[in-house]
Amino acid sequence: MADWAGRVGARLYPVHPSRPSVFGTPCSPSVADLPEQVDLAVVLVGDPLPVVEELAEAKARFAVVFASGFAETGEAGAAAQRRLAEVVAQSGLRLLGPNTNLNAFERFRDDLEGPAIALITQSGHQGRPVFALQELGIRLSHWAPTGNEADLETADFLSYFAERPEVGAIACYLEGLKDGRSFLLAADRAARRGVPVVAVKVGRTETGARTAASHTGKLTGADAVVDAALRQFGVIRVDGLDELQDTAALLARARPPRADGVVVYSISGGTGAHVADLATEAGLRLPVLSEARQAELHQWIPEYLSVANPVDNGGHPVGDERGRKIIDAILDDPAVGVLICPITGPFPPLSDRLVRDLVDAAEQTDKLVCVVWGSPVGTEPAYRDVLLGSSRVATFRTVGNCLTAVRAHLAHHRFTTGYRSPFDEAPRTPSPSYRKAQALMHPGEQLSEHAAKQLLRAYGIRVPREQLVTSAAAAVRAAGLVGYPVVMKASGARIAHKTELGLVKIGLTSASQVRDAYRELTDIARYEGVSLDGVLVCQMVEQGVEMVVGVTHDDLFGPTVTVGLGGVLVEVLRDTAVGVPPFGEEQARDMLAGLRGRALLDGVRGRPPADLDALVEVVLRVQRMALELGDRLAELDINPLMVLPQGQGAVALDALAVCGR
Amino acid sequence: MADWAGRVGARLYPVHPSRPSVFGTPCSPSVADLPEQVDLAVVLVGDPLPVVEELAEAKARFAVVFASGFAETGEAGAAAQRRLAEVVAQSGLRLLGPNTNLNAFERFRDDLEGPAIALITQSGHQGRPVFALQELGIRLSHWAPTGNEADLETADFLSYFAERPEVGAIACYLEGLKDGRSFLLAADRAARRGVPVVAVKVGRTETGARTAASHTGKLTGADAVVDAALRQFGVIRVDGLDELQDTAALLARARPPRADGVVVYSISGGTGAHVADLATEAGLRLPVLSEARQAELHQWIPEYLSVANPVDNGGHPVGDERGRKIIDAILDDPAVGVLICPITGPFPPLSDRLVRDLVDAAEQTDKLVCVVWGSPVGTEPAYRDVLLGSSRVATFRTVGNCLTAVRAHLAHHRFTTGYRSPFDEAPRTPSPSYRKAQALMHPGEQLSEHAAKQLLRAYGIRVPREQLVTSAAAAVRAAGLVGYPVVMKASGARIAHKTELGLVKIGLTSASQVRDAYRELTDIARYEGVSLDGVLVCQMVEQGVEMVVGVTHDDLFGPTVTVGLGGVLVEVLRDTAVGVPPFGEEQARDMLAGLRGRALLDGVRGRPPADLDALVEVVLRVQRMALELGDRLAELDINPLMVLPQGQGAVALDALAVCGR
Repeated sequence: MADWAGRVGARLYPVHPSRPSVFGTPCSPSVADLPEQVDLAVVLVGDPLPVVEELAEAKARFAVVFASGFAETGEAGAAAQRRLAEVVAQSGLRLLGPNTNLNAFERFRDDLEGPAIALITQSGHQGRPVFALQELGIRLSHWAPTGNEADLETADFLSYFAERPEVGAIACYLEGLKDGRSFLLAADRAARRGVPVVAVKVGRTETGARTAASHTGKLTGADAVVDAALRQFGVIRVDGLDELQDTAALLARARPPRADGVVVYSISGGTGAHVADLATEAGLRLPVLSEARQAELHQWIPEYLSVANPVDNGGHPVGDERGRKIIDAILDDPAVGVLICPITGPFPPLSDRLVRDLVDAAEQTDKLVCVVWGSPVGTEPAYRDVLLGSSRVATFRTVGNCLTAVRAHLAHHRFTTGYRSPFDEAPRTPSPSYRKAQALMHPGEQLSEHAAKQLLRAYGIRVPREQLVTSAAAAVRAAGLVGYPVVMKASGARIAHKTELGLVKIGLTSASQVRDAYRELTDIARYEGVSLDGVLVCQMVEQGVEMVVGVTHDDLFGPTVTVGLGGVLVEVLRDTAVGVPPFGEEQARDMLAGLRGRALLDGVRGRPPADLDALVEVVLRVQRMALELGDRLAELDINPLMVLPQGQGAVALDALAVCGR
Repeated sequence: MADWAGRVGARLYPVHPSRPSVFGTPCSPSVADLPEQVDLAVVLVGDPLPVVEELAEAKARFAVVFASGFAETGEAGAAAQRRLAEVVAQSGLRLLGPNTNLNAFERFRDDLEGPAIALITQSGHQGRPVFALQELGIRLSHWAPTGNEADLETADFLSYFAERPEVGAIACYLEGLKDGRSFLLAADRAARRGVPVVAVKVGRTETGARTAASHTGKLTGADAVVDAALRQFGVIRVDGLDELQDTAALLARARPPRADGVVVYSISGGTGAHVADLATEAGLRLPVLSEARQAELHQWIPEYLSVANPVDNGGHPVGDERGRKIIDAILDDPAVGVLICPITGPFPPLSDRLVRDLVDAAEQTDKLVCVVWGSPVGTEPAYRDVLLGSSRVATFRTVGNCLTAVRAHLAHHRFTTGYRSPFDEAPRTPSPSYRKAQALMHPGEQLSEHAAKQLLRAYGIRVPREQLVTSAAAAVRAAGLVGYPVVMKASGARIAHKTELGLVKIGLTSASQVRDAYRELTDIARYEGVSLDGVLVCQMVEQGVEMVVGVTHDDLFGPTVTVGLGGVLVEVLRDTAVGVPPFGEEQARDMLAGLRGRALLDGVRGRPPADLDALVEVVLRVQRMALELGDRLAELDINPLMVLPQGQGAVALDALAVCGR
């Protein structure tokens, strides 16, 4: 700490109740005895609560609380953490921790230039590899080890770092989140400012979620929901710490891409083919270079080698300026935004010059130059001294990590270029639908199908023409009004599995069929002991794509909207996408684009394309409903939503709604 | 070469038509002038054909041909390569190349012990990183750079290396294959001997396949088919050269696993949670340690830390023997086969001892100890000297590669333990079905549905009761025999899209409906100009799961069998699996297990499970048909195959068969 204080010019006062001095510096017996107001207190005691109370009393501004034994240990610890949070909430003091460490006070290299990585980790140890990037020449500006987040949380640091001019990218290691909404607001701020955020988020599996929860005592959230939230706000999720390092380093330092075309430049046809294969598989675009460009390259590369992309130089020329000219010619091409040079096997007589030419060329261009140093050894001077000494070349040890980082870089640019904050678009006053909807809610109850459909209608979602009837004669009259053929269904609160129970009759084409169906439905209901509020006589809607749209509540993010393909696809493949409010039209379209079975919406077997706009509109209206009704709508499930051919809309054929208490 | 000759004790004779000496050694003017018979000739001339002819004449045993400009350059080069192959085929000479290099003559380290990696690469450059593993202490025994494979091919080296006692694993870099069957036979030999084969195979994408083909001029094959072939014969496919290195190194040196349980041992709860998450996601099994074992570990690890698995030591004890006792206790557990210790951030006072304890413990156990050295720097002595100095600890730089390698190791053991060669099981004489089938084939023709179904019946595949009729009256009689309700379909050679044209009528329940349907079908056929051989009156089969089973021909592997879920799943999701003959019952079951929609076969929405055994039997019978009929069956498509509930069989409701010319 003394070392840190000396570096940043802080006055350091040790406090200890009994010792006269610590490490040779005289101690004060308490915070109240200090000669000036405290900007930052580092609390290294086993039971920090009394000290934090003292600090709050003394109007200290910040405290770092090192002690563990809080929410990560169970209910008693969680209670202790709540007391800590209460003390802080009632004062001007802001607190980092508990269950954190002193990483923020480590020595950062001050000889490195250019945009830096700011690091946020919920585990000190897990931040080490990113911090160690400084030893490879990559600048780090901050490290916030947030621990249990009793007060200050990941979102606070995310917002803060996004505003700092020296920060080029923010790298996060997340085990859970304290609060979903504050995280989204912070991610939104970074997205608005175009600052890339790269995150490892533990919890892909139950095992991971459980273990992580016991480490810092935070909510991990359903992984599909977390994943959707990160994607919506442009946070780049990676899995390994090595990917976090490589992706954050590239995104911190690379300039905005000039084009999304990637060229692979290699000294072996095999390497070129392999990397081109993996790059294409990773979703990168490898444009074929123009005839003119290829002719230019063939001035320096023998005719029998392919220079279309990948560019195979057959061995980088080392005796003269040809090698540099090749690289410059590639980078000069307007279709090219990124050059990737895999140096699979270093051979110093050749690769030393290649590396030098790449480093020099990178200095002269604003395009991205990436090198993959394929040797597993990594002590070669061309790698350690030349490549790592350049801040303009992005150097990787594996092709996989290079492609992950390049893809993230291009995707981040596309994302921020088109970004419109959904917080700006979110309506601030309740819709007129809200009053109508309120009247339909019955706390703690599952609504009847008919009532659930009225709720949908209140929000402008189309339902079939239908009437609720309580006699066979009324059913026949209703069928005449609705129009044949009709569907008839038993209706009542708390009826599930209508089809399995035989409580649905479809394709009824005459009054006598309607009359028979009425009797049969009421007989079955009586036999099964199901209480009905009547029988629904509904318009029959057949020609369309069956979808499901629903609302569920997530521990972390509150109400979320799910959309998926209906029938066998949702049952067998769970082919659904989730949206975390607030989201806009574009994100709703992205949800649909991510469905594996989305070709069904485009039309298969000669069927017409479905009315995608109407489907998007339903998803957005359901979001509105979820946001306005909040906890009062515990669950909503439109199944199926029949999406009709283009221009004809979408109709909710059945709906289940459960009201919260 | 002189250096190599000195090392292996070979007598080296330079040959040059005009020079008196090469590098100070006197030259012979021709092969014929050499004083003894040639064991191995290294041919370093631009046009090797005359030299190879000379060598064949002189009864040389092996030649390595370095020159490029053959099949990789187009048709003229391919013709030159064929001439080379012909010369070789007519002599006792075996040839490596052309378009290869001198990697086989490199200096291999002879101070490394234990099982080695043998390397086969179709590009010299791409083998470099694996060869460089020697600098990390991993033994390499061979390197075969096969180039264009005019004569000796990957399969030859695979077979040879699989028999060598010093070879622990074979690492391959493949761009294409010269011949599918020879590769399968070689992979089968390695599988029988339990020698793991790890391969990068370029061609995941069109771009990769095209570029690779132009590099060594070999067939790349449809990637899904190659992938299936590799999986069937236990070849472990990886994508990056870094994965090839790490997986081959582990598999070469690790002893057979004693159990498949994996324990994560970490010095931080965060690291443990993260690695446990990724390991579970990778499909590894992390058993919860027994209460007794946990109590034992808590002798040395504080009670508040979790030791269930992951085992969090809160900082490896360094002052005494506790650290070693913890590791030994974990390895002693019968549920544990693998210990993974991620050292995310090295901190020498702690990690040096941890590394030492792990290395020592690994010496004393036959279980697998893996360390992930997470620092991106990699120059730390604990890593370079201690970890890399141990042949018993498997050391990785990324968690991802460690998990890939461990999963491959466990899977390889499972695979070889249960391996039964499909070549042993393949029948050697044609089945009685074969004669019946031959009579049904019409070269170059698409068979009528009725004829295609007879072909299926010849191979014991069930089809519906059906009759082909040519009058309305006969149709009514047939319906009576088949049993109502019936399906009627127009039948004729070359009819496609029957349903779309209205040439199928289903659910006919009376003689009058059958009579009407007959007239309608023949009217439509006349209107559409479709020539019929009659109308099929078929038994109606409804209750089952629709599948598709078919035969297609692959450039590399010949006839292959495809199976998939029918209806929307095959059309929208292309949810199919391919089998490369020969395969046995187990592989057929694996194909079905790999289908994304396989839950449909297990029964959904309360439907009964489908008759999986019958489906497997159909797949095997279709394989038999494909193998026996060979090119004469150009294409077969059973769509749908209705798989009935368990115990009730499977019925081919429609089939399309095209005969080869």
